Amino acid sequence: MRQIVIGAAQMGGIQKAETRAQVVARLLALLDDAAQAGCDLVVFPELCLTTFFPRWYSEDPAEIERWFEPDMPGPETRPVFESAAEKGIAISLGYAELTPDGHRFNTQIMTDQSGQIVGKYRKIHLPGHGAFDPERSFQHLEKHYFEPGDLGFPVFRNLDTWMGMLICNDRRWPEAYREMGLQGVELVCLGYNTPSANSQNASESADLRQFHSDLSVQAGAYQNSTWVVSVAKGGVEDGHHMIAGSVIVDPNGQIVARTKTEADELLVHACDMDATRFGKESVFDFKRHRRIEHYGRITRQTGVIHPDGSEG
Amino acid sequence: MRQIVIGAAQMGGIQKAETRAQVVARLLALLDDAAQAGCDLVVFPELCLTTFFPRWYSEDPAEIERWFEPDMPGPETRPVFESAAEKGIAISLGYAELTPDGHRFNTQIMTDQSGQIVGKYRKIHLPGHGAFDPERSFQHLEKHYFEPGDLGFPVFRNLDTWMGMLICNDRRWPEAYREMGLQGVELVCLGYNTPSANSQNASESADLRQFHSDLSVQAGAYQNSTWVVSVAKGGVEDGHHMIAGSVIVDPNGQIVARTKTEADELLVHACDMDATRFGKESVFDFKRHRRIEHYGRITRQTGVIHPDGSEG
Repeated sequence: MRQIVIGAAQMGGIQKAETRAQVVARLLALLDDAAQAGCDLVVFPELCLTTFFPRWYSEDPAEIERWFEPDMPGPETRPVFESAAEKGIAISLGYAELTPDGHRFNTQIMTDQSGQIVGKYRKIHLPGHGAFDPERSFQHLEKHYFEPGDLGFPVFRNLDTWMGMLICNDRRWPEAYREMGLQGVELVCLGYNTPSANSQNASESADLRQFHSDLSVQAGAYQNSTWVVSVAKGGVEDGHHMIAGSVIVDPNGQIVARTKTEADELLVHACDMDATRFGKESVFDFKRHRRIEHYGRITRQTGVIHPDGSEG
Repeated sequence: MRQIVIGAAQMGGIQKAETRAQVVARLLALLDDAAQAGCDLVVFPELCLTTFFPRWYSEDPAEIERWFEPDMPGPETRPVFESAAEKGIAISLGYAELTPDGHRFNTQIMTDQSGQIVGKYRKIHLPGHGAFDPERSFQHLEKHYFEPGDLGFPVFRNLDTWMGMLICNDRRWPEAYREMGLQGVELVCLGYNTPSANSQNASESADLRQFHSDLSVQAGAYQNSTWVVSVAKGGVEDGHHMIAGSVIVDPNGQIVARTKTEADELLVHACDMDATRFGKESVFDFKRHRRIEHYGRITRQTGVIHPDGSEG
């Protein structure tokens, strides 16, 4: 048994007017709860230092700059790393990354229990659109603010476990989990900011959107026999509502814990990493069962090509 | 709106002692029900002409031969094709195929409404094992009786719709749905024979196994924005119990209909093929969102390779 006590540190909305210091105080409070609960690892959501700014259009460099972190940790976020290291808690958190050479990514990092960064992931599946879209009820401009991640889907060793990270829309793409499954991943940590309304389809309910989220996470866990911790920033941000519903999912794809609120809430579960083994050695023993000679389209073509040659 | 009234023709167990004529009579009765219900398409399960013989070990060619069809339709199965054509119903059915040159496949075919075969699929993800395994509570010898399918994952036009087929364990593999999704599939027809017990893990419940089945089918539907019809041969075969729980799943991944029994039962639902469009044009618009440059492991490697180079 390799037990990790995992804390899914769900957050409520972060308003535009909130300062980094205010947000960092919330992270520190969640870390205090996690220490009380005996957590080994705490996972904070996507963009956990700011509002989900891609819902607003901007081309003003100064306005954009305030959402991005040139350093991680930086002066304002260092207390989070220090507190976690003091407590012996590994942490994973998401933020908008500005690189020294001016590239912008939607990024998640993970530390070990001493506060050293041991894993970094840059979101690959950016949803939404790149230009202002007057037909939508609100914007989803991730393709405007970020470049697609350039690090692949790294798996790394932490807490005696093979771990990986995903961000929000990545969870809907089986390719993302499979890339990590093929590296033997045992724990996937992912954060999300998901509007409770579809900006292109007013009839889509929040319940359906939560179902889509759960379904994707549960399938990714089962089909790769891995734990998945899926952590929301939920609630309301300046009038825009997001689903919450953070979950911890076992390697059978079953939800073993779920948050009850849409606010800052620590969800804790003791997870046995050895529970990943049976699936990896039986129905999902990839070496015995996968047939890569029939998977060619997955890497050969990006979009749909119908059998009659027409594009989708 | 492109509506297809689909009949999922679930079957109860087929005993070893049942003749082909007895089984064909059951198929014909289900077709009569389907005509009454106004079905355009009826989907029968995997190995719908025989018991699930891979649970028993045999090396006796004569014993093996009785489970296989050298012709489709053959003399005993032709009445099914004729009845369907008379009624104007397209059908899909699974059987053990023996080719003229002696190869054996686990196969599913589909006809159009005139009884012509327009699609053929040979099961690619054969579960279980190839040699007798004394440690299992019962055998699952698909790798003994069948070769892996050699036709890829074909998508074809039928009833003004892009259709494909999968068989049983294929439904657990996202690669299978994605190969068809990349060909624009709008309706996946799949049949299964799934033991309600895990031969290697007595503590796994039938409910958990039904959950795994549903989860895989629902995720495949949602993540490719396609309808999926998933049809069981369930109930008891010579003392061996199989899950039933046939379902019709919409392109949101939601179960819209489910059988109530473990016996022969026709489940009917009117499905709008145009309901596949919104997903294909938004969150799963593959051309805009997939990043094949990061999917290389999926086709480059079959089994697990950990980041430290060790195999899984």
